Amino acid sequence: MSPPKYKGIIFDIDGVLKRGSTPIPGAAETVRKLRGKGLRIVFLSNLSTKSRRQYVDILRNKIGIEVSPEDLVLATSATADYVAKNSSTGKVYFVGHQGLREELESHGLKIVDDPEEAEFVVAGSPFDEKGYVTEENRWKFTGAIRAILLARAKFVAVNPDKLFPGPDGKPIPGTGTFLGAITAATGVEPVIVGKPSEEIYRIALEKIGADPSEVIMVGDQLYTDIIPAKKLGLTTVLVLSGLTKKEDLEKLDAETREMIDYVFEDVRGVLKLVE
Amino acid sequence: MSPPKYKGIIFDIDGVLKRGSTPIPGAAETVRKLRGKGLRIVFLSNLSTKSRRQYVDILRNKIGIEVSPEDLVLATSATADYVAKNSSTGKVYFVGHQGLREELESHGLKIVDDPEEAEFVVAGSPFDEKGYVTEENRWKFTGAIRAILLARAKFVAVNPDKLFPGPDGKPIPGTGTFLGAITAATGVEPVIVGKPSEEIYRIALEKIGADPSEVIMVGDQLYTDIIPAKKLGLTTVLVLSGLTKKEDLEKLDAETREMIDYVFEDVRGVLKLVE
Repeated sequence: MSPPKYKGIIFDIDGVLKRGSTPIPGAAETVRKLRGKGLRIVFLSNLSTKSRRQYVDILRNKIGIEVSPEDLVLATSATADYVAKNSSTGKVYFVGHQGLREELESHGLKIVDDPEEAEFVVAGSPFDEKGYVTEENRWKFTGAIRAILLARAKFVAVNPDKLFPGPDGKPIPGTGTFLGAITAATGVEPVIVGKPSEEIYRIALEKIGADPSEVIMVGDQLYTDIIPAKKLGLTTVLVLSGLTKKEDLEKLDAETREMIDYVFEDVRGVLKLVE
Repeated sequence: MSPPKYKGIIFDIDGVLKRGSTPIPGAAETVRKLRGKGLRIVFLSNLSTKSRRQYVDILRNKIGIEVSPEDLVLATSATADYVAKNSSTGKVYFVGHQGLREELESHGLKIVDDPEEAEFVVAGSPFDEKGYVTEENRWKFTGAIRAILLARAKFVAVNPDKLFPGPDGKPIPGTGTFLGAITAATGVEPVIVGKPSEEIYRIALEKIGADPSEVIMVGDQLYTDIIPAKKLGLTTVLVLSGLTKKEDLEKLDAETREMIDYVFEDVRGVLKLVE
């Protein structure tokens, strides 16, 4: 008997396991079955706003998937991990939401209010889910600029995502829009930890403890999920339950099309690869 | 007797006639003497926040220079003028402060709250003088993005200035930092009306009613004052009472140095050119 081909699967969360707070049909059952076959499952999200604790809660209570923080690779936690590993003083000037703060603090980093004390600027999104700059982030444009220009702080960002659909389906700005402002003002480009950076995929592979060739990436977007995962040598699955639609596939050039190993309607299709 | 060489003078305001709200010594007296020689004086400011009414008040009460709105060419009023001339519906989605709103409305434009009704996005700075996003501008990043992406609104900016010194002398963001965010999110670059755009200089020359060769530009900055004025054929005077210091001049390349016709310690030096 030959050993099983796959040892682990990385699941993108939004558009793959849930849409908003609604589970995608078959998500919980599929994960259960895959675990039953001995596969190590890791969940990945690029959101700049939520901590692992918050995602454990969402996956358990909204989607019915039992998870522990060790099963999660989030842009927030990966960024905190990257900064903790590269920092000498641990002093961080932070832009964003409570979930990111939580991850920075749980990685032993110290949030400073004075930008000139910072060794790192860590940028998530200063905008809320309706597109307002939140009350706590109203001075953060200035703070980030001062940390970078006056304290020569290193500039790290959770993700490069410029726009999201708001509650009304219309665009609201995200981290990438904030980054555009700061780069315009300072001339400094951030290091990006979240997707499509390879950094976050490397962390996920480390958690699974397998070679890229033994791992499947399941995502709903080409630019953030399929292309970077394929470049690292993973098997790629595109599901059509999220942002990419069947008709989008017809418009792809041959080179991009070849990066998608499998296309399924939804997450249940993944079971076919491991039977 | 040969006719006088110069018919008019354009004065930049900040760093030339005042610093903050303190007049620069000799400013009022110099303007009075120049007027006494029959020169037409125009005052120019790139600030995105103030209207002509507000500047009349500042020049009169803080610096002691008697002016009427017709003597002023402001980035705010010039932008309103540009939009009024190029608009068909007059509907503007506006980002910034009360002074800009005042100019837009006094040019007959209609400020709309719904970005999707806008024909133009007019961008000043959403930041206050301490570097906070003001309460009224907290949703304006989203609004500007929606106007541009959903309503295909034209994107016009008061100035491209990315940073200013705040009350503590440290940088705070301006209009240009906001523009960096919106261009990152939408891929659209704004039309800029204020300095260093030629647009605002053309409006000043029109007011004076003279050829560029008959007009002096007095400013404290190379990039915004001297270079664009020289390119249009004006005589240029750099004063050292503002942002440019004597030691900065030594670092200039020959081509830039040649764009400065005269260097004076302060505004009083201009009198030497017209005696």
